[in-house]
Amino acid sequence: MINFALDCDFMTKKPIQFKTEIKGNRLARAGVISTPHGEIATPAFVVVGTKATVKALAPEQVRDLGAQTTLCNTYHLYLQPGDHLVAEAGGLHKFMNWDKPMFTDSGGFQVFSLGAAFGEGGVTKFAKEGTQNAQTMVAEEGAKLAQVDDDGVTFKSHIDGSKHRLTPEKSIAIQHNLGADIIFAFDECTSPQADYDYQKKAMERTHVWALRSLNYHEQSGKAGTQGLFGIVQGGKHRDLREESARVIGSMEGLAGFGIGGSFSKDDLGEALGWVNNILPEDKPRHLLGIGEPEDLFIGVENGIDTFDCVAPTRMARNGTLYTKTGKINIFNTQYKNDFTPIDSGCGCYTCQNYSRAYLSHLFRAKEMMAGTLASIHNLYFIVNLVSAIRSSLVAGTYEQLKKEYLG
Amino acid sequence: MINFALDCDFMTKKPIQFKTEIKGNRLARAGVISTPHGEIATPAFVVVGTKATVKALAPEQVRDLGAQTTLCNTYHLYLQPGDHLVAEAGGLHKFMNWDKPMFTDSGGFQVFSLGAAFGEGGVTKFAKEGTQNAQTMVAEEGAKLAQVDDDGVTFKSHIDGSKHRLTPEKSIAIQHNLGADIIFAFDECTSPQADYDYQKKAMERTHVWALRSLNYHEQSGKAGTQGLFGIVQGGKHRDLREESARVIGSMEGLAGFGIGGSFSKDDLGEALGWVNNILPEDKPRHLLGIGEPEDLFIGVENGIDTFDCVAPTRMARNGTLYTKTGKINIFNTQYKNDFTPIDSGCGCYTCQNYSRAYLSHLFRAKEMMAGTLASIHNLYFIVNLVSAIRSSLVAGTYEQLKKEYLG
Repeated sequence: MINFALDCDFMTKKPIQFKTEIKGNRLARAGVISTPHGEIATPAFVVVGTKATVKALAPEQVRDLGAQTTLCNTYHLYLQPGDHLVAEAGGLHKFMNWDKPMFTDSGGFQVFSLGAAFGEGGVTKFAKEGTQNAQTMVAEEGAKLAQVDDDGVTFKSHIDGSKHRLTPEKSIAIQHNLGADIIFAFDECTSPQADYDYQKKAMERTHVWALRSLNYHEQSGKAGTQGLFGIVQGGKHRDLREESARVIGSMEGLAGFGIGGSFSKDDLGEALGWVNNILPEDKPRHLLGIGEPEDLFIGVENGIDTFDCVAPTRMARNGTLYTKTGKINIFNTQYKNDFTPIDSGCGCYTCQNYSRAYLSHLFRAKEMMAGTLASIHNLYFIVNLVSAIRSSLVAGTYEQLKKEYLG
Repeated sequence: MINFALDCDFMTKKPIQFKTEIKGNRLARAGVISTPHGEIATPAFVVVGTKATVKALAPEQVRDLGAQTTLCNTYHLYLQPGDHLVAEAGGLHKFMNWDKPMFTDSGGFQVFSLGAAFGEGGVTKFAKEGTQNAQTMVAEEGAKLAQVDDDGVTFKSHIDGSKHRLTPEKSIAIQHNLGADIIFAFDECTSPQADYDYQKKAMERTHVWALRSLNYHEQSGKAGTQGLFGIVQGGKHRDLREESARVIGSMEGLAGFGIGGSFSKDDLGEALGWVNNILPEDKPRHLLGIGEPEDLFIGVENGIDTFDCVAPTRMARNGTLYTKTGKINIFNTQYKNDFTPIDSGCGCYTCQNYSRAYLSHLFRAKEMMAGTLASIHNLYFIVNLVSAIRSSLVAGTYEQLKKEYLG
């Protein structure tokens, strides 16, 4: 852990550093992100702790399953309990008892997908199909509306309907109050079904907002302890994605990059390649909200260093569990008296100590430990899959590993 | 831990042994119960794990908060997932990953309080007021009916309405399949508002059922690995309680005793005194379903060795938290920005790492960790209060401790 309080370079050293250790095929790379709360060996999966808690897990359980870092959601925490309260508590790390590296997102995605609209004009609506981005799953739960203009976004709270407004400056101010190591510039997250002209307009707005986010961040006095990532948008269009990568990639004060928006399963790798062939190699790249096993391989091959996704924990709470041979639904009758672990050979706490029959019982009995044990397993599976991908890059055995997982 | 596999006295040694270490004032005593899965230093609080899980807690969290032993409910496990399935899994200890001492109750209480009635005649109804027994809280949630006769009880499942019948033999057979160290004889649990004649009749039936439970247990071949406790009933009537203590106390094959039924707050100590002045001193005594702090002191003074109660975890999940100066409701507005622990000076995991403000946030956000952190605190409070009572008996400082807690 880098202790900035004892570091003579305090005022000049950047809080987020990235070092590439090994380059693999195509754009793949293994590296290390250094943060004020320790290092992240990349590629890495970032565990989502939406409301300052990884659902159903104590921080020690998150750490023990191998997680190096978490990501909390600015939109949720701004609304509840409020970023000023978190600041008063000493910041998110202390508030939620997580002393390792942490990200917060910008709130942009949730504002567009969860925030309810009011008024007329300028509305953005999320599509209900045609994408595989986990973020879109949220939007699918009920298409919501928010009102966007060049200065920011006005929305209603999904909790109590109260009216709120986020601008780039406000998003960064909130993220300063939350105090994560890595924070994101405010962006406009468009529907994948928006037309080219709207995607271009939203992308240009995202670029202006990135610059405003960066300026606010650099003038705030927080740039020595928190690193700002800019977000590349541009939908499914190569020219827009490349333009976005050039514009965002040229902002020197950014500590790294996020790649946002929705992708179709078939286009993900290609789109990431467009972007990561342009983004500077010396800064980390985060793929926002995507994390199915196949996506992780596609992401790494196309230059992604970190991933976050709610799918492992959300699926876990619904009883869908990863195994090396595919997902299983623990509610299936066959598992009621199956006394083997969820996944033979899995080293997670759940598989080491409990059977499919026990999980099946807990889910049917609606016991809280069902979600806990299932989440531990699914997160272990994904976190350690990304760790294994990293090890395989170092060892030069990536293709073997990929074949083992994807067949 | 007594390892019976290596013990030459395997066939003759009883699975449950009790040794008194110190006698305190009145009937109070500190002792040790030895079981096939280790020792229980008494007085002790037994943590309830109704459906083969302590709600919201992993077994390691239960162990780390100081719990020596758990109690699971036969009625619930018989219905779901079924005792035969638990037997096939290798017993409750293995199924739920708990390798320390364990109790199961007889199912009697839940049959009368949760089982729905059908048919006519012979119905027993639970009262809605006038008691403080935590068991009665369950009944209060909706008075239910079950059909009792001299041979057993017929009831409908509270889950799916299916028809079931429990007899003393069936209850013990189920508890053999579950495999806890300490099991209970089947008893009739009456309403506190039943009249004297009915209390007497139910008590006599409970005595016959205790003998049938014991005979079945001794002929089963399981008496070498599980110990059977008989249950004293008799309502609020001194003559019945004393008669019940004499009859149950004289059954030599019993490994210990449970005291069942409902008590008014004022009568608890007196009623326990009636019973425990008669029960043999060389066997442990368990008070079923009672565990508020004041009750624990009253129980110990009147000869109780072990307690179980769902109140600490149930209250925790509702946001009611114990402190040395009384209970608090974490939903109160004043705790939203209270950055102190739930209880200053408390050594539990929750108080060591989280603030009232964080708990308040988790409860308001309906996060699963709210129940987990609150349950850890409340169980730690109660388990360690009983441990402190034990230490005070050994050190001769019981009265000081009592004054400290009850003022």
